[in-house]
Amino acid sequence: MPDASLLECFETPSARPIVIEHIGEEFTSNCPKTGHPDFGTVIVRYLPRPPAKSARKGKVDPTAIIKAGGRCVELKSLKTYYHSFRNEGIFYEAVTGRICDDLVAAVDPVWLQVITNWRGRGGIRSIIRADHGDVPPHYRGMV
Amino acid sequence: MPDASLLECFETPSARPIVIEHIGEEFTSNCPKTGHPDFGTVIVRYLPRPPAKSARKGKVDPTAIIKAGGRCVELKSLKTYYHSFRNEGIFYEAVTGRICDDLVAAVDPVWLQVITNWRGRGGIRSIIRADHGDVPPHYRGMV
Amino acid sequence: MPDASLLECFETPSARPIVIEHIGEEFTSNCPKTGHPDFGTVIVRYLPRPPAKSARKGKVDPTAIIKAGGRCVELKSLKTYYHSFRNEGIFYEAVTGRICDDLVAAVDPVWLQVITNWRGRGGIRSIIRADHGDVPPHYRGMV
Amino acid sequence: MPDASLLECFETPSARPIVIEHIGEEFTSNCPKTGHPDFGTVIVRYLPRPPAKSARKGKVDPTAIIKAGGRCVELKSLKTYYHSFRNEGIFYEAVTGRICDDLVAAVDPVWLQVITNWRGRGGIRSIIRADHGDVPPHYRGMV
Amino acid sequence: MPDASLLECFETPSARPIVIEHIGEEFTSNCPKTGHPDFGTVIVRYLPRPPAKSARKGKVDPTAIIKAGGRCVELKSLKTYYHSFRNEGIFYEAVTGRICDDLVAAVDPVWLQVITNWRGRGGIRSIIRADHGDVPPHYRGMV
Amino acid sequence: MPDASLLECFETPSARPIVIEHIGEEFTSNCPKTGHPDFGTVIVRYLPRPPAKSARKGKVDPTAIIKAGGRCVELKSLKTYYHSFRNEGIFYEAVTGRICDDLVAAVDPVWLQVITNWRGRGGIRSIIRADHGDVPPHYRGMV
Amino acid sequence: MPDASLLECFETPSARPIVIEHIGEEFTSNCPKTGHPDFGTVIVRYLPRPPAKSARKGKVDPTAIIKAGGRCVELKSLKTYYHSFRNEGIFYEAVTGRICDDLVAAVDPVWLQVITNWRGRGGIRSIIRADHGDVPPHYRGMV
Amino acid sequence: MPDASLLECFETPSARPIVIEHIGEEFTSNCPKTGHPDFGTVIVRYLPRPPAKSARKGKVDPTAIIKAGGRCVELKSLKTYYHSFRNEGIFYEAVTGRICDDLVAAVDPVWLQVITNWRGRGGIRSIIRADHGDVPPHYRGMV
Amino acid sequence: MPDASLLECFETPSARPIVIEHIGEEFTSNCPKTGHPDFGTVIVRYLPRPPAKSARKGKVDPTAIIKAGGRCVELKSLKTYYHSFRNEGIFYEAVTGRICDDLVAAVDPVWLQVITNWRGRGGIRSIIRADHGDVPPHYRGMV
Amino acid sequence: MPDASLLECFETPSARPIVIEHIGEEFTSNCPKTGHPDFGTVIVRYLPRPPAKSARKGKVDPTAIIKAGGRCVELKSLKTYYHSFRNEGIFYEAVTGRICDDLVAAVDPVWLQVITNWRGRGGIRSIIRADHGDVPPHYRGMV
Repeated sequence: MPDASLLECFETPSARPIVIEHIGEEFTSNCPKTGHPDFGTVIVRYLPRPPAKSARKGKVDPTAIIKAGGRCVELKSLKTYYHSFRNEGIFYEAVTGRICDDLVAAVDPVWLQVITNWRGRGGIRSIIRADHGDVPPHYRGMV
Repeated sequence: MPDASLLECFETPSARPIVIEHIGEEFTSNCPKTGHPDFGTVIVRYLPRPPAKSARKGKVDPTAIIKAGGRCVELKSLKTYYHSFRNEGIFYEAVTGRICDDLVAAVDPVWLQVITNWRGRGGIRSIIRADHGDVPPHYRGMV
Repeated sequence: MPDASLLECFETPSARPIVIEHIGEEFTSNCPKTGHPDFGTVIVRYLPRPPAKSARKGKVDPTAIIKAGGRCVELKSLKTYYHSFRNEGIFYEAVTGRICDDLVAAVDPVWLQVITNWRGRGGIRSIIRADHGDVPPHYRGMV
Repeated sequence: MPDASLLECFETPSARPIVIEHIGEEFTSNCPKTGHPDFGTVIVRYLPRPPAKSARKGKVDPTAIIKAGGRCVELKSLKTYYHSFRNEGIFYEAVTGRICDDLVAAVDPVWLQVITNWRGRGGIRSIIRADHGDVPPHYRGMV
Repeated sequence: MPDASLLECFETPSARPIVIEHIGEEFTSNCPKTGHPDFGTVIVRYLPRPPAKSARKGKVDPTAIIKAGGRCVELKSLKTYYHSFRNEGIFYEAVTGRICDDLVAAVDPVWLQVITNWRGRGGIRSIIRADHGDVPPHYRGMV
Repeated sequence: MPDASLLECFETPSARPIVIEHIGEEFTSNCPKTGHPDFGTVIVRYLPRPPAKSARKGKVDPTAIIKAGGRCVELKSLKTYYHSFRNEGIFYEAVTGRICDDLVAAVDPVWLQVITNWRGRGGIRSIIRADHGDVPPHYRGMV
Repeated sequence: MPDASLLECFETPSARPIVIEHIGEEFTSNCPKTGHPDFGTVIVRYLPRPPAKSARKGKVDPTAIIKAGGRCVELKSLKTYYHSFRNEGIFYEAVTGRICDDLVAAVDPVWLQVITNWRGRGGIRSIIRADHGDVPPHYRGMV
Repeated sequence: MPDASLLECFETPSARPIVIEHIGEEFTSNCPKTGHPDFGTVIVRYLPRPPAKSARKGKVDPTAIIKAGGRCVELKSLKTYYHSFRNEGIFYEAVTGRICDDLVAAVDPVWLQVITNWRGRGGIRSIIRADHGDVPPHYRGMV
Repeated sequence: MPDASLLECFETPSARPIVIEHIGEEFTSNCPKTGHPDFGTVIVRYLPRPPAKSARKGKVDPTAIIKAGGRCVELKSLKTYYHSFRNEGIFYEAVTGRICDDLVAAVDPVWLQVITNWRGRGGIRSIIRADHGDVPPHYRGMV
Repeated sequence: MPDASLLECFETPSARPIVIEHIGEEFTSNCPKTGHPDFGTVIVRYLPRPPAKSARKGKVDPTAIIKAGGRCVELKSLKTYYHSFRNEGIFYEAVTGRICDDLVAAVDPVWLQVITNWRGRGGIRSIIRADHGDVPPHYRGMV
């Protein structure tokens, strides 16, 4: 079952604005109507807030995973979080909204965008987009 | 015969704005003049209205298919609805308008766009576009 | 000889604005100077006027081909009309203007665009564009 | 030797604005320094002025080649004109300017653009662009 | 360990504005969580400041590597600097911020952009972007 | 050794504005640090000034190579000039600035742009851009 | 229902061996288990037998549709025959075998090959191949 | 858990040799060492034995699923069988061998080939091939 | 006029068998019927005979152009020879045969192959092949 | 000047047959007729002889560069050897034969193939192939 508690974060490692994009090409969940598996790609883009105090240059203590100040989502925990959808019966639209909500809660970003691109079933492919905050215009039309 | 009653909806699963796109690549109907089959792709894009009350995060009861409040069209029912055109004699333009009308009635979206792209007959291919509401500019030129 | 009387229309099947595009890839006429055949693609895009009274949803009587109110050109008749240029000696520019004039007369659209793209002769390929009414900007640069 | 008298014109066959593009892919002249042949593509785009009096719809008498009023260049004569460069020793830049000058004199267009794209010699390829009048922005970056 | 002291610079060899782009396709570091190696491409774009006194035309003494005035990063030293990340456990975001910080300190450019594009792990690919100064708009959407 | 005296010019052959682009795909020089050869493409784009007196249409005397008034660089001399870098130890940035300086001195153009695109060494590819005068916006992002 | 009587033939128009290939990209039938429509491409390749008596070169009487001697299948009748599968519930394998049997009976070729390539359902695409006679080796692996 | 009892068969619908290929692009199982999900494509090719008695042309009773005589695997049951691997911890090699064994037992083909193509982990992709019987040479090197 | 005396040769520079291929992409001659220019690519492949006495390794005196023993055609002379067809009225087939004859006479190769690939006129492209001696099978199907 | 003494070898590191291919994309020499630089790609493929005594598996002492027994060419020395052609006036055919001769002398392989692919001059590209020993058939047609 989708489990946001799996998401781990680390302090933004630089005071500079950094736009982060993670493209997960192996997402799977189940259709809540038929129980058949769905397969898709999940793209997450966001701008984290800067660190609480100006981070030392490029130096991050990976054991000091904290939940306060500007944060980035840790990649392995993101993967594990995605795996928690594996046996969940859930609509495409709900997957997209849920990932957006959970990442916003975990990372508290300046802006964040989630795009899910599904292989589809019965000859219909689907693309779902959810935005949080003020996504820059040049990312709006992208897949 | 095209049958809008086949369309089922579920409550929008998130309070966030979510742009939804379904690309149906296996649409077929018949030419009303010659009776020959037509083959095309149907693209539907829309922004559903938000749920009646702010939806619980990412949790949707798939058995509670309702017709009130912000709604999304359920994918399998969309496929079945498309199949209801299979033996209908109907012009490209009417297919496009009909799908647009039926989905607007079923989903009551903020905006919705239907594009049909036909393989054509006798050396002429056709693309038909219908809009409902205020489609964002970066979707207008897309196929 | 080009024969606009071959064009048949049907009432616009929806009260919504529908942009229609027909891509005819098998057009042929003759060079008026040499008599040699020319081959090209003819693209027609237009926005028909709405039906006289709001059309019933997606229902069009294909036998009731009428000439009043918002109209769409019937595809098979368009093909036949194209065929009427087959043995005509006529310049590219005149083909383009003629098709534009004839379709405007038949359909009376809000706007209409004709682009002819010729395979050319003697190593020279040609593209001719004609507009009627206020073609939206995002269609102007398209081929 | 380049011979502008080879260019023949006909009256613009429609009162509508028509943008005309001729892509000649088999142009050849000689290098004035080495005498070696040069090979290139010549693209001409222009907007002719409208006919003196509104032209009858799509009807042009190909024998009535005139030099007054809005004019289009006849394609076969354009080809013959290109052939007159075949044994001329002339720089790329001069070819481009010469074609622009000769066509402007023959056609007297609203605007006209000439682009020559050369296969080059000794590992250097060249592209030369010349404009007359107010070329629309969406044609400026094109090759 | 990442070692900014490996970066060598030379005086900007021209008083003109020169935009410099280095695309390093063989970058590797380690994941700080799992210790597994990461592989990615590092793109650096920047505009150096002009030389202290207007440089003599196109003439640079490669033995006179200095650290004052407008500077460019020397390519072989950039490669060696990249190699110093090879056995470092460091997050993608920190790599990106660190390279941006170190190059800004070494080169003191007008603007500088770092994009890292990672092959990813566990089915998730990542792209991280960091900017310093006023990056021109036409470089913002590029990868 | 780079030798600007190899560059020969001829008078701009037309009073029209002509944008000229030469793409040299076989440039080679040496790395000043390691002595290893570098290989790249050199793109030059410029707008020459008009001729001293309005040039006769498309007619240029190739033997009258002059250095006054609006000028274009002669292609074979450009190739020979590029060859003079063949055994020079010189940084990418200096090559780019030097070619820009030498061509500006020789041609005295309205604007001129030099882009060098290098195959690179040790897994790093580089692209360097230098501008002189007011390069039109639609050429700025091009490679 | 599949109806082989729709297939019409004409006499092979040349005594030379001619390999014929028809690629039908708009085939549709129904799944016999679920009733859902299937969509696929049907490729037919064959070598007809030579005409009964050596045909006059390139001369065929289209009104003389006969059923004896070397025969080719008439293209429009092949299309109509394909349409007769439209509402049939039939497995992929049976479609392939049936088309092969019907064409062999109608054409009596030296060899004939049928390949059906299905868009599939639930993430599984299928390709079925049936051969009659001695299909040359270089056609065996083709799709 | 992989469950071969999910596989259903039907009698080979034609006496001709038919080569059948199913390409399943949405296969997933788990790594038995780490528990992480694996994603891959499963290709099955086989030649079924002919039906017990020469099958009536193209006619198969889908309700008569039998287990004797020449058999083909039913596609929807194959998909369901694949889904039974979804939560199984199993090596790539064992997946491949298991599918080959189960299909050979179910179908009893003349020959059968299973190829699994995995997206891989940690930068290593894998392709596993298993053969049963005498696979024709032109299928041996295919993916 | 085609002039075989323009062809110059040099002694085969190695005792090893060397297969030589020259791809001339800028060939032009004239149509003997209409006088219009033809444009094509000329591919020449051949195996020269070995040198009279075993050549010193990789050392050839370019001033010693001889006409005896194993010979190769010099590239610049081949280009000049091609240019001698520039104003010749000659059929495609005759061009191909003539080049084959002239090169065989000049080079006296073990085998030689000429392929001419024409841009064509009136929508028909042509490829002509001529062989001398025993062309290896793997070159026979190539263009 | 081409200098075979720059080639260094090491003992074949395995008793198994290993086919080795080096693709050098930055080769340059000069034309002996005009002095202009030539640019090309050099492909070398070979099968080394086995080591003098069966090598310990996968273990090679890199300091023991020897010239006896089965040998492989060291890559950096191959690059330096190629650079020694940089200012040599030499025909394509002689380059190809010379590299073949020098590598055969240095490596003494079972078989070896050299292919040079030149960017060409004056519209003619060239490909030269030299073989030593019994090159396997599937490498003969490759570029």
